[in-house]
Amino acid sequence: MSEGAGEGGGEAPIGVFDSGLGGLTVVRELLAAMPAEHVVYLGDSARVPYGTKSPETIRRFALQDLAFLLRFAPKLVVVACNTASAAALDALRAASAVEVVDVIRPGAAAAVAATSGAIGVIGTEATVGLGAYERAVAAIDPARRVVAKACPLLVPIVEEGRDDDDPIILKVLYDYLRDMQRLRVEALILGCTHYPLLAAQIAKVMGPSVALISSAAAAALEVQRRLCSTGRSRAGQAGELRCFTTDSPERFARLGRRFAARGVGQVRRVGTDELESYIAAEGRRS
Amino acid sequence: MSEGAGEGGGEAPIGVFDSGLGGLTVVRELLAAMPAEHVVYLGDSARVPYGTKSPETIRRFALQDLAFLLRFAPKLVVVACNTASAAALDALRAASAVEVVDVIRPGAAAAVAATSGAIGVIGTEATVGLGAYERAVAAIDPARRVVAKACPLLVPIVEEGRDDDDPIILKVLYDYLRDMQRLRVEALILGCTHYPLLAAQIAKVMGPSVALISSAAAAALEVQRRLCSTGRSRAGQAGELRCFTTDSPERFARLGRRFAARGVGQVRRVGTDELESYIAAEGRRS
Repeated sequence: MSEGAGEGGGEAPIGVFDSGLGGLTVVRELLAAMPAEHVVYLGDSARVPYGTKSPETIRRFALQDLAFLLRFAPKLVVVACNTASAAALDALRAASAVEVVDVIRPGAAAAVAATSGAIGVIGTEATVGLGAYERAVAAIDPARRVVAKACPLLVPIVEEGRDDDDPIILKVLYDYLRDMQRLRVEALILGCTHYPLLAAQIAKVMGPSVALISSAAAAALEVQRRLCSTGRSRAGQAGELRCFTTDSPERFARLGRRFAARGVGQVRRVGTDELESYIAAEGRRS
Repeated sequence: MSEGAGEGGGEAPIGVFDSGLGGLTVVRELLAAMPAEHVVYLGDSARVPYGTKSPETIRRFALQDLAFLLRFAPKLVVVACNTASAAALDALRAASAVEVVDVIRPGAAAAVAATSGAIGVIGTEATVGLGAYERAVAAIDPARRVVAKACPLLVPIVEEGRDDDDPIILKVLYDYLRDMQRLRVEALILGCTHYPLLAAQIAKVMGPSVALISSAAAAALEVQRRLCSTGRSRAGQAGELRCFTTDSPERFARLGRRFAARGVGQVRRVGTDELESYIAAEGRRS
């Protein structure tokens, strides 16, 4: 990997992809920690969600998303989507000469560091079904107890835009988090990019003694560590954020404001037909 | 259109497509009314749902779905997906020499026939946002009052597979149907293929005096009327149901049982890359 300017160097952008808008929570954390970095974001909103689909389909879509980002010669790619991290990380790393950072390993590490007790994980059906957080925690602390729960209603609840104090939100959260409460988890990993937007309500249900772990924030710190330790971070003026979506750019810009503190700037469309035309092998650099 | 055997005739299949599994409720109604018909079904489960996406994306996906079905030389195509019916019917009809039946017009007609009072409609964000049921009712009875409500949580609630008496289901339904109750609608159109699976709970919330209108059943009757009146219906032994999905066939078969009374038989996969490779013009017959 070259350092400094040029391909893969400080001036190169960080590539970030997600199944939709949710990964903008990772971008928000990245830019809070490293405001000078350039970021290219791809949200596959035409095929969102990934979390209800088969591992094979998730891998295929994720490899296409990666192939798109590699065209921008990024210095690092972040898989902001927990589901894609769970189903496709090995395939993505095999397909990329650029380093790929996921959200699951950093999130698991942050949870292990935050407490010595049991760890809860909430995520999509696919993320939980694949047991990705359990494996990531076990790789650090094999004795640690982990309980995971799929919460398929939470993403649509966030996207529906209910008021923060809407009673449906709390009722659904109490329903999903019952096991976590009973098992007295000491940390709860928000294992889906949308969940930080429900952090206040989740904290209300779990109580003040449970540490809420945002995988988005943990992944941003991991990126910062990697770039700073190799002299590839960018200093100076605020970097440029370029957003691409496979669905309507107007809708992305409108809904994206809730996920990205400083807005998403100009959004451009890239067709799923274009993504499908990439062969996975194109993601490899020979 | 030729009649009897051969292309477009009695032996030809009925093509049905949907964004996912939900359209199997239409297949169930079709086969209940016309058990001898052959059916080819495409569920675009890799890109489901359509209801949260832009009209342009919905149209593009729907045209690809149609193009796939036209390869089976169907005598008629049913757009089982309310969202695709709302966003793409004109484009689909322009792209097909085979007649295309949607679910919205039949559903609206059934509701107008069922009552003289106000009509409620529940559906996806896209179906409601496009005002498709309002227009379809107005085309029959311009004076009729229609109130529509987007219910984004209902599809994930059905797919999550909660027990029928799960309190979350009733709480969410009371929340969505509050306006319908206050406005005293006399008929409620279930404007999404998943909603018939919640009919018992919806009836509990709305009370026995409100007629629940299944667009799936209304569309099946419309297909039967069209085929019988032109001598293109098939008699004899039970027809063959062939199912295709863009995601995992195993998952489709497993979850599909809840939607299709007699099972879905063998399910085959067709890739979204194949669908994307169809140019819309290929759907036209010259």
